[in-house]
Amino acid sequence: MGNVVDLLRTRFGAGAVLTGAEADARYRVDFSHENACAPLAVLRPTSTDEVAAILRECHRARQRVVVQGGLTGLAGGATPQANEIAISLERLTGIEQIDRAAQTMTVRAGTPLQVVQQAAADAGYLFPLDLGARGSCTIGGNIATNAGGNQVIRFGMMRNLVLGLEAVLADGTVVSSMNRMLKNNAGYDLKQLFIGTEGTLGVVTRAVLRLWPKLPSKVTALCALRGFDEAVELLHGLQARLGGSLSAFEAMWAGYFHYVLEHMPALRSPFSERHPLYALVEVEGTDHAADTAHLEAALGESLDSGVVADAVLAQSARESKNLWAIRDGIGDVTPTLQPLLAFDVSVTVESMAAFLAAVGAAFARFPDPVTNLVFGHIGDSNLHLAVTTHRARDLGKLCDVVYEAVGQHAGSISAEHGVGTLRRDYLHHSRSAAELEVMRRLKAALDPHGILNAGRVLPD
Amino acid sequence: MGNVVDLLRTRFGAGAVLTGAEADARYRVDFSHENACAPLAVLRPTSTDEVAAILRECHRARQRVVVQGGLTGLAGGATPQANEIAISLERLTGIEQIDRAAQTMTVRAGTPLQVVQQAAADAGYLFPLDLGARGSCTIGGNIATNAGGNQVIRFGMMRNLVLGLEAVLADGTVVSSMNRMLKNNAGYDLKQLFIGTEGTLGVVTRAVLRLWPKLPSKVTALCALRGFDEAVELLHGLQARLGGSLSAFEAMWAGYFHYVLEHMPALRSPFSERHPLYALVEVEGTDHAADTAHLEAALGESLDSGVVADAVLAQSARESKNLWAIRDGIGDVTPTLQPLLAFDVSVTVESMAAFLAAVGAAFARFPDPVTNLVFGHIGDSNLHLAVTTHRARDLGKLCDVVYEAVGQHAGSISAEHGVGTLRRDYLHHSRSAAELEVMRRLKAALDPHGILNAGRVLPD
Repeated sequence: MGNVVDLLRTRFGAGAVLTGAEADARYRVDFSHENACAPLAVLRPTSTDEVAAILRECHRARQRVVVQGGLTGLAGGATPQANEIAISLERLTGIEQIDRAAQTMTVRAGTPLQVVQQAAADAGYLFPLDLGARGSCTIGGNIATNAGGNQVIRFGMMRNLVLGLEAVLADGTVVSSMNRMLKNNAGYDLKQLFIGTEGTLGVVTRAVLRLWPKLPSKVTALCALRGFDEAVELLHGLQARLGGSLSAFEAMWAGYFHYVLEHMPALRSPFSERHPLYALVEVEGTDHAADTAHLEAALGESLDSGVVADAVLAQSARESKNLWAIRDGIGDVTPTLQPLLAFDVSVTVESMAAFLAAVGAAFARFPDPVTNLVFGHIGDSNLHLAVTTHRARDLGKLCDVVYEAVGQHAGSISAEHGVGTLRRDYLHHSRSAAELEVMRRLKAALDPHGILNAGRVLPD
Repeated sequence: MGNVVDLLRTRFGAGAVLTGAEADARYRVDFSHENACAPLAVLRPTSTDEVAAILRECHRARQRVVVQGGLTGLAGGATPQANEIAISLERLTGIEQIDRAAQTMTVRAGTPLQVVQQAAADAGYLFPLDLGARGSCTIGGNIATNAGGNQVIRFGMMRNLVLGLEAVLADGTVVSSMNRMLKNNAGYDLKQLFIGTEGTLGVVTRAVLRLWPKLPSKVTALCALRGFDEAVELLHGLQARLGGSLSAFEAMWAGYFHYVLEHMPALRSPFSERHPLYALVEVEGTDHAADTAHLEAALGESLDSGVVADAVLAQSARESKNLWAIRDGIGDVTPTLQPLLAFDVSVTVESMAAFLAAVGAAFARFPDPVTNLVFGHIGDSNLHLAVTTHRARDLGKLCDVVYEAVGQHAGSISAEHGVGTLRRDYLHHSRSAAELEVMRRLKAALDPHGILNAGRVLPD
């Protein structure tokens, strides 16, 4: 394999090909922190043409490559495997254009999400994708994993926010579909091939993102609920009453909510009592007084009907931030939940209670206690389970329990974190043999030598 | 070829295979009314399994098939070509389920759009796709062509309204991805392969559609504008002020607007003067008084600033309907515009004025007068041009003019009507050689014998 590295050195100059100690530890593992592995070499192209040239050489030499963005993934997808060359897009950055007439932004794949959000805001627009890793994760990674986050209920996942993109196929072919138009049905919509396929079908190098007009008003409320059915009733009631301005509905089961409060002394529950479930609700719009009045009226009605047991409306940006801190507290309490299994699954709302009951019952049968903190975006069918136990040998069995329950409830083993290497062997719980076979046909059609992110998503 | 038909007769019974006079004229051509051709036979499967069985036989025999929904397409895609067997989905109909908890509807592909809209409304929901052919077009056709329509600015195209689908590949493999969840990244999102690919990669048999809470309030206004720049300013101003409740923004250039009024005596302009451009604006929400007040305030400001020259707000559902009748009048005046070239193109808002100027200048150089009525969804970058001339021999040249101008302005030759056979040879104006090559790779991977809707979208 050494000769490909030499070839790349000859082609791009020794300085462009990092090996040994030059290839910093950060290229060895993603945020899953599992199976760290040094790549053969790290290449950091600064242009689409360089990405294409690198892939042409690797394709010719049957050299496997792993593509890296911000390395904030949780599924092992960007962690090198033995004898892979890493292509890091960390130098393929920058915003190329903001088109005010079309309300689009053209951006290079290595640009961090937060830079894009800020540039949009500075220009008077909203780029609605948002997630905890915003400072490090990249637009290319967001596209490759079809990232979700907190505002999916209103704006959809990354797939809905991308109008056009450019990708390089495994053989170095540049496929440029930099569409800036909302409607375009001139032939197959090729960008779909590269969204959510985790870099297995091509390397995304640039994208055209859709921008929205800024929503200057934000109203946040926290609701205490008597149970899951009430949470669904509240969600549907708010959706019907607020006509699309509901931008977040984050459910937190009591176990999660109180665990966070216990471990983060700076935070406090606004409620005197303990409740089975909490929902963080946010409405964004253009008229703060009207938005507040609408949400207040809706919550008042829900309190009267008994759907909501208690509720508080944030009276300031600081209060809103404190409510969100409970929801985002999972990031802060992670060190206390080791070894952590972070599940990111989908099941339909109808099946959610049964799914959680089945998982809870199975966990209760383990000899040692299992901690299971549940929260998520129920309007998106998406649940996060933060699971830990003291018995390391039970971890694999806990995964089996969750993914088998997902399969039994016709759910998805990955709602928004992706499959990568770590969930690959559970994929059959969510996809049929025919579906997997079509995925393999696509992979073979676009990457016949299987050099691109091999072993991710699909078994090797 | 006759023996395949015999085989299908043996397999499905003589009554299931229509040939000769039994194969009604309606199976011979779509709404483009061009190149009518009788199919070898018409098969009308009533289940996914039957579709699969038919395709298995055809795949084995290398027998080409054309897939038919409501035959309302304008691109020739569903019109049979010589020696094709037609698979009509007209008997694969019915709504299987409305899931209130997940807010989804499961439906068979042959179900007409209007039936779906009505069923959603009856259950208290909105299915937001809407277009003129709603009574005849089918959900399967809407998916295959990634249909657009009037509410794309708010809800997106059909691609955004489909959560899951089931399709049968050319070889009879059933790929069932009937996802009902908003977030699902468990492997490649295979449904994208069948949305907007016009039946060339598979036959859509069932789908899971996303439903929205009903929007009970609707406010319609017609604005007279001083020019195109003002239309864009109005659009952006309304988007920014109304925070997502703007559900339609239909532009009508004076030529179109007054042609419709002249030919439809029942309709009347609400304005005393003639203006260069008109915009039909609609806001939908849950609070009629508030929605009206917001739109009135926004239009008042636009009148004060001179962006809008004049405006009327519909005071009743009847008045709203009358305003829409002008926009929808293209359907009524079509008989007076023969032979009609109906262009459906996209160019970015920034390029729109230059594109129209280039087309207008080129039309003016034709020896005989060319009628060019322009209207469209400028918020979606989508323009419709209804073009006619008395010299039939100029029709091809008029197409060249428009599509070359589309290419020069980096636009799309098909915004929402699809490519079919009629626009296939212009596709290179919108897509690069590399893009076309990837489309061919996909086609070969999923339909190796090229039996499915051959010659549609891609050159044969």
